[in-house]
Amino acid sequence: MLEDRIRNKELLSRVMSAEEAAMLIKDGMNIGTSGFTPSGYPKAVPLALAKRVRETGERIRIGLFTGASVGDELDGELSRTGIIAKRLPYQTNESIRDYTNNGGCEFLDMHLSHVPQYAKYGFLGKIDIAIIEAVAITEEGHIIPSTSIGCSPTFVQMAEKVIVEINTSQPLDLEGMADIYIPDNPPNRKPIPIERVDQRIGKPYITCGVDKIAAIVVTDIIDNVRPLAPIDDISERISGHLIDFLEHEVKKGRLPQNLLPLQSGVGSVANAVLAGLLKSKFENLVCYTEVIQDSMLDLLDSGKALFASGTSITPSQEGLVRFKENIKKYKEKIILRPQEISNNPEVIRRLGVIAMNTAIEADIYGNINSTNIFGSRMMNGIGGSGDFTRNAYISIFTTPSTAKNGDISSIVPMVSHHDHTEHDVMVIITEQGVADLRGLSPKERAKVIIENCAHPDFKPMLKDYFKRAQSGKYKHIPHILSEALSWHHRFLKTGTMKIW
Amino acid sequence: MLEDRIRNKELLSRVMSAEEAAMLIKDGMNIGTSGFTPSGYPKAVPLALAKRVRETGERIRIGLFTGASVGDELDGELSRTGIIAKRLPYQTNESIRDYTNNGGCEFLDMHLSHVPQYAKYGFLGKIDIAIIEAVAITEEGHIIPSTSIGCSPTFVQMAEKVIVEINTSQPLDLEGMADIYIPDNPPNRKPIPIERVDQRIGKPYITCGVDKIAAIVVTDIIDNVRPLAPIDDISERISGHLIDFLEHEVKKGRLPQNLLPLQSGVGSVANAVLAGLLKSKFENLVCYTEVIQDSMLDLLDSGKALFASGTSITPSQEGLVRFKENIKKYKEKIILRPQEISNNPEVIRRLGVIAMNTAIEADIYGNINSTNIFGSRMMNGIGGSGDFTRNAYISIFTTPSTAKNGDISSIVPMVSHHDHTEHDVMVIITEQGVADLRGLSPKERAKVIIENCAHPDFKPMLKDYFKRAQSGKYKHIPHILSEALSWHHRFLKTGTMKIW
Ligand SMILES: CC(C)(COP(=O)(O)OP(=O)(O)OC[C@H]1O[C@@H](n2cnc3c(N)ncnc32)[C@H](O)[C@@H]1OP(=O)(O)O)[C@@H](O)C(=O)NCCC(=O)NCCS
Ligand SMILES: CC(C)(COP(=O)(O)OP(=O)(O)OC[C@H]1O[C@@H](n2cnc3c(N)ncnc32)[C@H](O)[C@@H]1OP(=O)(O)O)[C@@H](O)C(=O)NCCC(=O)NCCS
Repeated sequence: MLEDRIRNKELLSRVMSAEEAAMLIKDGMNIGTSGFTPSGYPKAVPLALAKRVRETGERIRIGLFTGASVGDELDGELSRTGIIAKRLPYQTNESIRDYTNNGGCEFLDMHLSHVPQYAKYGFLGKIDIAIIEAVAITEEGHIIPSTSIGCSPTFVQMAEKVIVEINTSQPLDLEGMADIYIPDNPPNRKPIPIERVDQRIGKPYITCGVDKIAAIVVTDIIDNVRPLAPIDDISERISGHLIDFLEHEVKKGRLPQNLLPLQSGVGSVANAVLAGLLKSKFENLVCYTEVIQDSMLDLLDSGKALFASGTSITPSQEGLVRFKENIKKYKEKIILRPQEISNNPEVIRRLGVIAMNTAIEADIYGNINSTNIFGSRMMNGIGGSGDFTRNAYISIFTTPSTAKNGDISSIVPMVSHHDHTEHDVMVIITEQGVADLRGLSPKERAKVIIENCAHPDFKPMLKDYFKRAQSGKYKHIPHILSEALSWHHRFLKTGTMKIW
Repeated sequence: MLEDRIRNKELLSRVMSAEEAAMLIKDGMNIGTSGFTPSGYPKAVPLALAKRVRETGERIRIGLFTGASVGDELDGELSRTGIIAKRLPYQTNESIRDYTNNGGCEFLDMHLSHVPQYAKYGFLGKIDIAIIEAVAITEEGHIIPSTSIGCSPTFVQMAEKVIVEINTSQPLDLEGMADIYIPDNPPNRKPIPIERVDQRIGKPYITCGVDKIAAIVVTDIIDNVRPLAPIDDISERISGHLIDFLEHEVKKGRLPQNLLPLQSGVGSVANAVLAGLLKSKFENLVCYTEVIQDSMLDLLDSGKALFASGTSITPSQEGLVRFKENIKKYKEKIILRPQEISNNPEVIRRLGVIAMNTAIEADIYGNINSTNIFGSRMMNGIGGSGDFTRNAYISIFTTPSTAKNGDISSIVPMVSHHDHTEHDVMVIITEQGVADLRGLSPKERAKVIIENCAHPDFKPMLKDYFKRAQSGKYKHIPHILSEALSWHHRFLKTGTMKIW
């Protein structure tokens, strides 16, 4: 029944086809959409827009602002048709990644907690249209979001017009999972009153109002969630080290028995870590994170975890079946918040979150590159890793010690791009072991990172670099500037970082 | 009258000479002291310790933890006598800087807001003794700090024993200026209830207790504040650009008429900026910052600024006279807080602070080096610049466009050390002009930074690098890795970054 989904009579008359709604989008506009990790993003309207541009050859270049990554119907189609001129703040789609790295669009890689705030401050320019996927619209014209919250509340607030995609494949029972709280701008901002992960502080809908809604499109295209790779041996070893580390911290009295709220990045290592926790002896866990994936549902189902707060839920195809069947139960154990809250430094620091994120590479002094391969090639973006890392109780980065069949060392003299600096990184874990950097100077860090985390193939080269660097004039962070990035350069020239 | 200063009878018996108190310090200890920007740090005990080690040749190696920089009696004397084995989190003293850069001690460069938190979490090891400069001790054995708060409350809380230096040159009227609030550790932490810069939320003393005080030393050595260099032409031009920028933001409606709370780093540019504000048409300003210097007293005296919150007050010799004479008045306009509060991400973000800090160098993509010259030579440390920058409403970095008589460009292809990344830096200002980076992609940033901020001598070289880098394979952040750090390398080899 469409009336269950669109509860305001007047709004029923604004239902139109995706093609008609897409006509609202003009060249030069900034469009803000729902979506966070291929989940809860608009699909029908972007597909229609891309189709039109393909057919008519019309020139449309827009700024596309989202919560985080979105599916191929949006990032993929709009980049393959050359529609995206500017993109922020995060993506994981192959087409737009290539498009960015080939210079097709200008990509702005932002801390996810900054996005809504900068939008409200007027720092990102005008937002012309917000396109929001929803499960329903209330009598008052407010929007009940589907599987992600992200920046939707802010985009709706700042946009001139709103297009709502009612997605009937998303269960109406999602209603009540969202908790929407938007802080005022300074100087009127108040403390965010979250002291426990399971606290609700806002409304179950995104405030919008009937007048602002320019178009409603009904669709049933399902979220295009990428399947997770099976857990490999390397990821399992990393996960094992991480859990040993947490157990050690509990033993030392630096963490409570049930740990502190967990944040976990996405990807195969993150998945292995959550799977490891399922098998661990930890109990009564809680999560304060961004994305709720299958492995977190497993933790909730097993009773290992009591509660999870995030900004999106991204189950796999199988996970989705389970999620839909048990949605009433999950609603008691999951809150979805705007990313301005899920990623808020204030809340993360107050709760004492344990931040576990994945690095592309780390250097011997503890700097982390999460985004740019060889300094120039954008992978996904910094995402929320900075929001969590800087404000964490303990900040952990994981990475396999090598890449590209062992030809690349993920531990290098100097990272080729800096996302998290020596000031923010407490623990680095590879399948080789754990480097606990807390309280260590740069030179002390270099010793443990090389000793505990580097792959044996590269240890001698790293030790050699570190030793020679120390004979230089300045010994605080010993470097040989003419050599610091030479490993990357060598790989680009020869296909390997090895010298033998 | 000593009884005004030591208000507990029992404690009067623990008054001893600096030499006797210094005997409590043993090899291998970690010592936490008061002090933040050469202000309010202990002087008599470290001088006595250094004297003894000089005379006896005894081996004493300690960890020295402070709020931020301290004076020569502490950092200078203890490094010249080889007593400091490990040092954190910040320094500005020439002796310890050289000592660090020569490998004499291990220096740990930390975000200032992290220090008290990590100490409480047990991440910095045991703190054996806290040495705190005070104007008085209460009947209950609580400590009334002198001109800086810094980490003192936490060091007192965590230390096994406390040595108090009662400094009679510090006016007793300082009592009431401090506002001491220490957040609990997670999971019991509550919101910090500051919504305006002038709000008091804590106690006027540092909780200690009679039993913990092992020694009291009475001294009258004054804070060794370095005189500020007169404002030069370059600093004045930077200040002019900065104030123009703020005026422009007000005009655009992105800042209120009276701006938002100001944070300002220290040094000659920072000083020029505050002097510039004094002459500007801004009114009803407030400051939420770390250090209150002469120029901020000027703003308060003139009525331009209504209130200043910081963690230390560091007047010059002349400023001190004025400060002492008008201290009752200043007490109504100044609050000194622990650095866990003055630098707290939660409060900074809530208040919407305008962060103005100084860079050593910036790169064309907007990364900032604040700490390590040529990647290896520690200058001072990151200080609070990261706490403020990441959480600011607007984050601004200033730097002259050249250094070393024009042989160094402060705008380079890639900074030789990263403290603030492309994700955090909104505005860069040199005497050449303003680069407003908000909403810009890396390549767009490069264009405005080169155009508006680089010195004409280096512009062609920067344009050439950027252009050639863009012809590489990956165009998100175009770099030529074999050349990115070559400018620094060239300076080290030839004494200039120039190639002509
Ligand atoms: C770091 C990150 C890219 C790792 O993701 P992943 O899927 O586990 O990565 P993979 O191991 O599959 O590597 C991805 C690519 O990087 C390459 N790579 C990995 N390490 C590398 C290194 N040290 N040097 C060069 N390339 C490397 C891989 O070979 C692969 O390349 P390909 O696409 O050409 O095959 C990802 O976790 C990320 O984007 N993190 C940053 C943001 C973030 O933390 N988000 C989540 C929380 S908000
Ligand atoms: C960046 C900072 C060092 C500038 O301080 P300053 O006193 O204005 O600096 P100066 O211009 O005198 O430069 C200091 C030294 O760096 C050198 N320098 C400056 N820019 C340089 C560059 N781009 N490359 C190499 N050296 C450079 C100067 O030549 C000088 O060297 P010297 O000591 O051999 O003479 C200082 O503001 C700082 O430490 N900032 C970081 C922490 C911070 O922000 N603290 C305050 C808020 S918490």
